[in-house]
Amino acid sequence: MKKLINDPKNVVNESLAGFAAAHSDLVRAEYDPNYVVRADAPTAGKVAIISGGGSGHEPLHAGFVGYGMLDGAVPGAVFTSPTPDPILAATQAVDGGAGVLHIVKNYTGDVLNFETAADLAAAEGIEVRAVVTNDDVAVKDSLYTAGRRGVAGTVLVEKIAGAAAQRGDDLDAVTAIAEKVNAQVRSMGVALSPCIVPHAGEPSFTLAEDEIEIGIGIHGEPGRERIKLEPADAIVERILGPIVEDIPFASGDKVLLLVNGMGGTPLVELFIVYRHAAEVLAAQGIEVTRSLVGNYTTALEMQGFSLSVLKLDDELTELWDAPVQTAALRWGR
Amino acid sequence: MKKLINDPKNVVNESLAGFAAAHSDLVRAEYDPNYVVRADAPTAGKVAIISGGGSGHEPLHAGFVGYGMLDGAVPGAVFTSPTPDPILAATQAVDGGAGVLHIVKNYTGDVLNFETAADLAAAEGIEVRAVVTNDDVAVKDSLYTAGRRGVAGTVLVEKIAGAAAQRGDDLDAVTAIAEKVNAQVRSMGVALSPCIVPHAGEPSFTLAEDEIEIGIGIHGEPGRERIKLEPADAIVERILGPIVEDIPFASGDKVLLLVNGMGGTPLVELFIVYRHAAEVLAAQGIEVTRSLVGNYTTALEMQGFSLSVLKLDDELTELWDAPVQTAALRWGR
Repeated sequence: MKKLINDPKNVVNESLAGFAAAHSDLVRAEYDPNYVVRADAPTAGKVAIISGGGSGHEPLHAGFVGYGMLDGAVPGAVFTSPTPDPILAATQAVDGGAGVLHIVKNYTGDVLNFETAADLAAAEGIEVRAVVTNDDVAVKDSLYTAGRRGVAGTVLVEKIAGAAAQRGDDLDAVTAIAEKVNAQVRSMGVALSPCIVPHAGEPSFTLAEDEIEIGIGIHGEPGRERIKLEPADAIVERILGPIVEDIPFASGDKVLLLVNGMGGTPLVELFIVYRHAAEVLAAQGIEVTRSLVGNYTTALEMQGFSLSVLKLDDELTELWDAPVQTAALRWGR
Repeated sequence: MKKLINDPKNVVNESLAGFAAAHSDLVRAEYDPNYVVRADAPTAGKVAIISGGGSGHEPLHAGFVGYGMLDGAVPGAVFTSPTPDPILAATQAVDGGAGVLHIVKNYTGDVLNFETAADLAAAEGIEVRAVVTNDDVAVKDSLYTAGRRGVAGTVLVEKIAGAAAQRGDDLDAVTAIAEKVNAQVRSMGVALSPCIVPHAGEPSFTLAEDEIEIGIGIHGEPGRERIKLEPADAIVERILGPIVEDIPFASGDKVLLLVNGMGGTPLVELFIVYRHAAEVLAAQGIEVTRSLVGNYTTALEMQGFSLSVLKLDDELTELWDAPVQTAALRWGR
């Protein structure tokens, strides 16, 4: 196992310390329990949004803390849900009196621990809502979920709900926007290589030299099938088909296309994927009007990618375009 | 070889097409010969800046084309210098009448081909200057260079010279700023794994399961030594020592610290590297006042990182902070 780490026990804390030091203009980190909040948190009168989950998916979620997106993020141990304590602490730290929205990826541990934290926060008089993201069409139930998994579409929920909160929408409205984005986004991924959880020290699964896993989860959970490696365009078609069929997307739709790297795949390949995905959508009359390409929801050093397609309307487009200033997404301000 | 590609011959063209489609608000691409320019190029009366080199280092250079940075970029084949033709075409396409600066990484082929293109452009009445970057302290001469290699420090040259051009500096002044940044930045890298050039199909070098290469080049060229894998903090110290000693940097200096991923290393590890690099500099009285962490000058899917340290003054800091709007770097506008 070759990793740029010191002690596996300290991966999350050391990485968090580096992140907070490199981005001290945007965020501050607290330790024991660990969480990240906007440097200027709380914002009085604004709905606050936090998200969280196991570490190893960076820049998700701490990389999205800042103006126009998240107010806070709660990183658990690698691929492990954060406990209620830091979720509660982050909720308290960001509350500006207008309520707090929890954006939670659908994994059993995450959902449970965010619920417990929400109950504790409510007992202290903080109004909390939750939106559970479940955009992964690969499998119905999985190792760690009842129902579909929450994957890279979560980034789009966080950006668009964050913009709604930033413009002053109230808690009901921000929650409704987050639900709407989750309802209109679908994702699916593929792995060319496994990843290694530092404290485990060996791959959580193996793939033969000529094999890839279609429908991979962001923790290396099994997907739909293992197949022989194919040309990029063929892989794109395998992933995009189930995404388009699910809602279904239809001719005339305007969409945001996210090509998300899993961590170990270079940008030069992600753009090859983007090219064909946009072509395939265009051939079906689906117009890509907004795009995002890069590593946004990763699985440590896994090689692979996921596609997410979000159906846009004027409101979602305007919120997507709104200024954002975070470590991993910035524009317009 | 598992890569998300179709035919190895088409990697650069397909990736370029995907890049240009995903970022059509910022850039346009031309083919045969291949180059990328700002969507609004040329900008009348503004000094234009182009850079280029072999592909496989994305987002370098096309990812830095846009407001406040590069006017154009010329991607060659993977790890292969672009020929004079596309360099000349890009130079013509961006010339707004105030001259064109070529920012060239110090590799023999790049330097020669940019010189030839500059001569051809001059014959057409375009005033061209060149700055050759050579920030890599690892080796004095290498496989492909006389003198030091140009590596990730090039990004800092491009950003800061780009800001000078955007504020209206003339060709002499922009050239002087680029020279100054190159003179004040030093870099060094390390590889944990090799990378595979698509048309070669196999790694250009091999490393044992417990070995790393200190001083690696961005094409996998040999560095200073191969050692056994060490904890991240020890590796950081090995890389940072020669950087600090080279200029040398001294107590009281304010610096920009760039932790650059080589392509296959996850962000969670890059922040562990950042944390200790900033600590080591602080212990020597060198204050990190600006930071950049991410994949900016890559070597395909290589695992590893480089550190770059740039000595700042008020002018360079102001130019660094100036608005920039490119695919890979954005803020403040």
